[in-house]
Amino acid sequence: MTPVKKGILERLNTGEVVIGDGGFVFALEKRGYVKAGPWTPEASVTHPEAVRQLHREFLRAGSNVMQTFTFYASDDKLENRGNVLQFTGQQINEAACDLAREVAGEGDALVAGGVSQTPSYLSCKSEDEVKAVFKKQMDVFVKKNVDFLIAEYFEHVEEAEWAVHVLKMSGKPVATSLCIGPDGDLNGVSPGDCAVRLVKAGAQIVGVNCHFDPMTCVKTVKLMKEGVERAGLKAHYMVQPLAYHTPDCNRQGFIDLPEFPFALEPRVVTRWDVQKYAREAYNAGIRYIGGCCGFEPYHIRAVAEELAPERGFLPAASEKHGMWGSGLDMHTKPWVRARARRDYWEKLKPASGRPLCPSISTPDSWGVTKGHADLMQQKEATSEEQLKQLFKKAEAND
Amino acid sequence: MTPVKKGILERLNTGEVVIGDGGFVFALEKRGYVKAGPWTPEASVTHPEAVRQLHREFLRAGSNVMQTFTFYASDDKLENRGNVLQFTGQQINEAACDLAREVAGEGDALVAGGVSQTPSYLSCKSEDEVKAVFKKQMDVFVKKNVDFLIAEYFEHVEEAEWAVHVLKMSGKPVATSLCIGPDGDLNGVSPGDCAVRLVKAGAQIVGVNCHFDPMTCVKTVKLMKEGVERAGLKAHYMVQPLAYHTPDCNRQGFIDLPEFPFALEPRVVTRWDVQKYAREAYNAGIRYIGGCCGFEPYHIRAVAEELAPERGFLPAASEKHGMWGSGLDMHTKPWVRARARRDYWEKLKPASGRPLCPSISTPDSWGVTKGHADLMQQKEATSEEQLKQLFKKAEAND
Amino acid sequence: MTPVKKGILERLNTGEVVIGDGGFVFALEKRGYVKAGPWTPEASVTHPEAVRQLHREFLRAGSNVMQTFTFYASDDKLENRGNVLQFTGQQINEAACDLAREVAGEGDALVAGGVSQTPSYLSCKSEDEVKAVFKKQMDVFVKKNVDFLIAEYFEHVEEAEWAVHVLKMSGKPVATSLCIGPDGDLNGVSPGDCAVRLVKAGAQIVGVNCHFDPMTCVKTVKLMKEGVERAGLKAHYMVQPLAYHTPDCNRQGFIDLPEFPFALEPRVVTRWDVQKYAREAYNAGIRYIGGCCGFEPYHIRAVAEELAPERGFLPAASEKHGMWGSGLDMHTKPWVRARARRDYWEKLKPASGRPLCPSISTPDSWGVTKGHADLMQQKEATSEEQLKQLFKKAEAND
Amino acid sequence: MTPVKKGILERLNTGEVVIGDGGFVFALEKRGYVKAGPWTPEASVTHPEAVRQLHREFLRAGSNVMQTFTFYASDDKLENRGNVLQFTGQQINEAACDLAREVAGEGDALVAGGVSQTPSYLSCKSEDEVKAVFKKQMDVFVKKNVDFLIAEYFEHVEEAEWAVHVLKMSGKPVATSLCIGPDGDLNGVSPGDCAVRLVKAGAQIVGVNCHFDPMTCVKTVKLMKEGVERAGLKAHYMVQPLAYHTPDCNRQGFIDLPEFPFALEPRVVTRWDVQKYAREAYNAGIRYIGGCCGFEPYHIRAVAEELAPERGFLPAASEKHGMWGSGLDMHTKPWVRARARRDYWEKLKPASGRPLCPSISTPDSWGVTKGHADLMQQKEATSEEQLKQLFKKAEAND
Repeated sequence: MTPVKKGILERLNTGEVVIGDGGFVFALEKRGYVKAGPWTPEASVTHPEAVRQLHREFLRAGSNVMQTFTFYASDDKLENRGNVLQFTGQQINEAACDLAREVAGEGDALVAGGVSQTPSYLSCKSEDEVKAVFKKQMDVFVKKNVDFLIAEYFEHVEEAEWAVHVLKMSGKPVATSLCIGPDGDLNGVSPGDCAVRLVKAGAQIVGVNCHFDPMTCVKTVKLMKEGVERAGLKAHYMVQPLAYHTPDCNRQGFIDLPEFPFALEPRVVTRWDVQKYAREAYNAGIRYIGGCCGFEPYHIRAVAEELAPERGFLPAASEKHGMWGSGLDMHTKPWVRARARRDYWEKLKPASGRPLCPSISTPDSWGVTKGHADLMQQKEATSEEQLKQLFKKAEAND
Repeated sequence: MTPVKKGILERLNTGEVVIGDGGFVFALEKRGYVKAGPWTPEASVTHPEAVRQLHREFLRAGSNVMQTFTFYASDDKLENRGNVLQFTGQQINEAACDLAREVAGEGDALVAGGVSQTPSYLSCKSEDEVKAVFKKQMDVFVKKNVDFLIAEYFEHVEEAEWAVHVLKMSGKPVATSLCIGPDGDLNGVSPGDCAVRLVKAGAQIVGVNCHFDPMTCVKTVKLMKEGVERAGLKAHYMVQPLAYHTPDCNRQGFIDLPEFPFALEPRVVTRWDVQKYAREAYNAGIRYIGGCCGFEPYHIRAVAEELAPERGFLPAASEKHGMWGSGLDMHTKPWVRARARRDYWEKLKPASGRPLCPSISTPDSWGVTKGHADLMQQKEATSEEQLKQLFKKAEAND
Repeated sequence: MTPVKKGILERLNTGEVVIGDGGFVFALEKRGYVKAGPWTPEASVTHPEAVRQLHREFLRAGSNVMQTFTFYASDDKLENRGNVLQFTGQQINEAACDLAREVAGEGDALVAGGVSQTPSYLSCKSEDEVKAVFKKQMDVFVKKNVDFLIAEYFEHVEEAEWAVHVLKMSGKPVATSLCIGPDGDLNGVSPGDCAVRLVKAGAQIVGVNCHFDPMTCVKTVKLMKEGVERAGLKAHYMVQPLAYHTPDCNRQGFIDLPEFPFALEPRVVTRWDVQKYAREAYNAGIRYIGGCCGFEPYHIRAVAEELAPERGFLPAASEKHGMWGSGLDMHTKPWVRARARRDYWEKLKPASGRPLCPSISTPDSWGVTKGHADLMQQKEATSEEQLKQLFKKAEAND
Repeated sequence: MTPVKKGILERLNTGEVVIGDGGFVFALEKRGYVKAGPWTPEASVTHPEAVRQLHREFLRAGSNVMQTFTFYASDDKLENRGNVLQFTGQQINEAACDLAREVAGEGDALVAGGVSQTPSYLSCKSEDEVKAVFKKQMDVFVKKNVDFLIAEYFEHVEEAEWAVHVLKMSGKPVATSLCIGPDGDLNGVSPGDCAVRLVKAGAQIVGVNCHFDPMTCVKTVKLMKEGVERAGLKAHYMVQPLAYHTPDCNRQGFIDLPEFPFALEPRVVTRWDVQKYAREAYNAGIRYIGGCCGFEPYHIRAVAEELAPERGFLPAASEKHGMWGSGLDMHTKPWVRARARRDYWEKLKPASGRPLCPSISTPDSWGVTKGHADLMQQKEATSEEQLKQLFKKAEAND
């Protein structure tokens, strides 16, 4: 009989570090199972072996959370994105739960059911309509008895609040992360204010995921934490950033970079960048530390290796990784052996190999301050048709 | 009953494009199953599901060759690299054959048994001793009845010739690829002369793999082809380059870059770079086109997509990839939709996101021309002990 | 008899554009007449032909102001910097006035006497002592009857106020520019508040010079203008930025860049960068537009060429410059002729030719927020000796 | 009475280092006296004070040669470039000689009369016609009694040979430098062969100037020296490179870079780059060391400072320059004082401050190998009209 695992809050309450997983959507796009553009997770049904294997790699790398591969798996999104294979949202969500549970059982990991922002909200449907969308996914998670719930990747704190309201009905712990940076959500609500609203809505864990690079995300969560503490509230904090360097992002994050999503390669962080990030996150008081788009298993292993002194153990995958490159000490070439040390990798400034390319880009949008933000705030636009018209108009003026 | 597949020579003789696979060692290092430094393939035995999944992804991406995951799986290497789990070379090679065969059976792919350069040669063992090492691996390949054989990753044409001599004894088609650039092998033998020697030794397919970026590898194979044609010989050509931009390499390739092997991220080629490479390789008359270290499934899919007009079909994984980014055409943001076109991605110069880093590096070695090359040529050094002494001496003078 | 020239305020009051000159200290350092480190202007006495020639080149390029070459020519500075030739401040200031007046007489330019920040202030001398230093320079300017006065290169608005108080005693128009960026002076006073204080002190023209790149300086002056207008005051605005790209500066500007002052070459702005700057400055309502360190005559010509439509004429030096590169239209090589157009130069992203170098640097200081700012605010430190002790202490803790 | 100065050959024969001057055409373009495109030197007549001052600055920086400002001052070029002021070539050449002599008299410098490549040659005029053009300039140099002659900036060794033939008739020492790189002249004659032909034609000093960066020019002169020595001949060697980093040049040098001539700023070499260059040139056995386009007085001073140990003295301008930045040792900020040392500046990798720009460019031409080189070799094209037609045709095919 397997012993009962400690729950997410139990772990966080006792100061344990909980390591999240990496970005399924991007990793599986590269492996051939997710389509960029729709970004929907039918693979849980069509190619379970690929999803299972990725779960397993994150588990082996040190993840304590198997997040169900249910990103954009709400019915409205699946429809909107032309879910040609005609699986129902329920089928996809159930299959994803089964896979996460199966692999979680192979190690010390919990299963988290995940919901994310909906087209219903963006097209200005009513609060009830939006909540109904979240409810449908949550029903599956309750049926499948996941360990806790995550509402993630929200650009507007209001929608995240609605999600929390729904998820709280499950009685399970709720974590929420926005895809915002230090400038706040798309309506200009500051990170501190966002966090306070989410905690008040009932989230026990708050933070950010996606859209910005690791250090920017840590900075944003720090602002959240300050806000929560200033308000005299309490919460746990989580961070699951991009694995891309994005010093040139505007408020909308990496979506607006010209390289998104098919030429981000030169921005991928190294394992050493991740170690710095993990340390920074830990020092900031964040205890749920993972990754989002771009994070591959070896990035998660780097989190686990950096925090091994605090946690007291290394992940299974470290049997295939010498700390700080020590595996190179048996290389035949002495100048490669000389790289088998921390100091070398920490100081290295890696070249791009692309002298014809710039080092930053100009974000590519028609005015966050003007066009898009205006649109997003036009809550009087009640139909998707109207929104489309507005977008077209904005585009025409671009 | 499955119909008998066309063999490798049959395909090449009729002008078909054969798509190779990508780099197992680097891909599995990132997934947590190979250790950088030793780079040995015990995972075929210990984690067959991970190796199988990677084979499957390459198959789905369009590969016609499942190369056995037997890199550095010769007994002398396994010993040298401290094969702590104590699997015999035979066990590993057999397991790898079974996995490759299993997945090959799921699609239109052949199984190729692979050998690579040996520590025995580098430590100046005799021709007989070195050949005995290859023979042991070949015996497994024959027993497992692979479809053809590849001798790859040789820095010295002489050792490759010896490998060909051995592999030819199997009666199976033999392909050979060196890990050299336009300057030739480590003894200074030009690509043209290398190719002629390999063809004369009996290889039906010759080319290069690893160590240099795609365009440099194509350039090298062109030099090989010119040499072979100048000599009045005939051969087929193969190319399996790095997925890294390496404009700053010296003769020894990416091993000498300061970023090897743990900070190569910024150099990773995009799918669009790969499409240019595939076209260039095709135009050069090369018909066996694949990848080596850094090549992930989506890179191989890019080869298959670029050459879809010539081949007449797309790979299975293209169901999850809109040609030239067309999957973005349903994005909510109009400026992202504007990226759904060939012209956009072909012209983009992707930023590194690393303004504090340079764009090229200075290769890091103690004088290829002096130290290392001298050592490599000192064939009078007959024992590994002596070689170690020489290395130490050279290192001391560095 | 020469007609009486219009004064500086007369020009600005009628909306004329007044073009400043460039950076004498840096230009003459490169020509061999100023020593980096001391940066003092003895050359007005020792090498008048060199100073005269530089004045002439700026006049020819379109400058309407011949600023006396009296930077750091206060007695306390000359002493402090080891004025080995033993010229008095009075001698240097007088010689500089004569040179400026001589060349101003050759065209449509005014003479401006200039003072700058003093070591007396930095070492916490009393207000009276600091004012006495400015008074000595002003006495020369009055005697030599310059057309107006400029107090420039102040890091602390308080010292600039003191300078304005003194200069106003002359009865001549007074312009003041701080060497600050958008974050304000070294005591944290915002650009808007700085400007209000200077206008209240009596300055008719306010703005910034040095320390930051052109666009940053324009941005700072905009903040000043907003502050002045918010306060219901009126002023004219000036901007004389660096000719270096400095996206990586902190509050202290280019002094803290690792490249200062001997490796700033890769950052030098092109003439096309200057045209964009001149347009931006004009659009911001700034009418006194010049340059500081790094600005060479051709940069000033670019200001004059960009604003030629508004001013109605080109400068003399434009006889040797085809607008937007049109002089290339007779080149023998057609691909060079193709560069003779505005569109080409406006869009060009010029390469550094330095692939081994980064594109930005990390400013090099011991904590603006901590060490230095603290020191600067420690007004209780009354002697230079005490200040030195503090600096040493801070350095030791660095 | 001034003592008779040692002649150029006397100096070189005794192993002295002779320091050349910098690039007049580019320096005076920035100062407002030369027009980019025509690049002709009427300023010797129209603005003698500007030309004199530049001579003086180079003299003060350490130059031992005042080269007459007669670049492109042949009659055919002046006509071709629309010498609108209608000065004769003779007037310009005479004025330039007087200015050079005047300043040379102020220090230890010789006067060198200079000729450069002609439109007559490029438009395929006869040898006699081309030689007549050189003869006219030489007659002025003989009349003005310059100390020696330089034929420089030739893309074709044949034209340089013709120039040497003419200049030798003066009885004065003749130096010749081609504007070629390691790949040889535009007809593909190697540097070694070029040098041999020039020495055989009678040149006592041979080398290269312009078109490539310092290290590339030194490399080219090394190839020349090897050629001369292999042929059993003897010569002195000179090098006067660009002050721009040009790693991306093709055979035609910086003319083909997209940044030529108005956006080369980011490529300008630092004084520390120049010190490395001067040392490299000296170590290569080159004893006439100067600069060409982009070299400002402080660059020449850097040559003189680097070679001060060998020469036994510093130039006059070093009174305004602390070796290796030592003038910073009195800076108020300790982290700036820390830059007052050799090690700091030698190791610094200066940032471009331009993260949106690449680090190298793609040369911009219609195929050196095809179009242009073909044209250049079509010596049967006898008229300028025919050449123009060919250019147009080539351009149309571009």
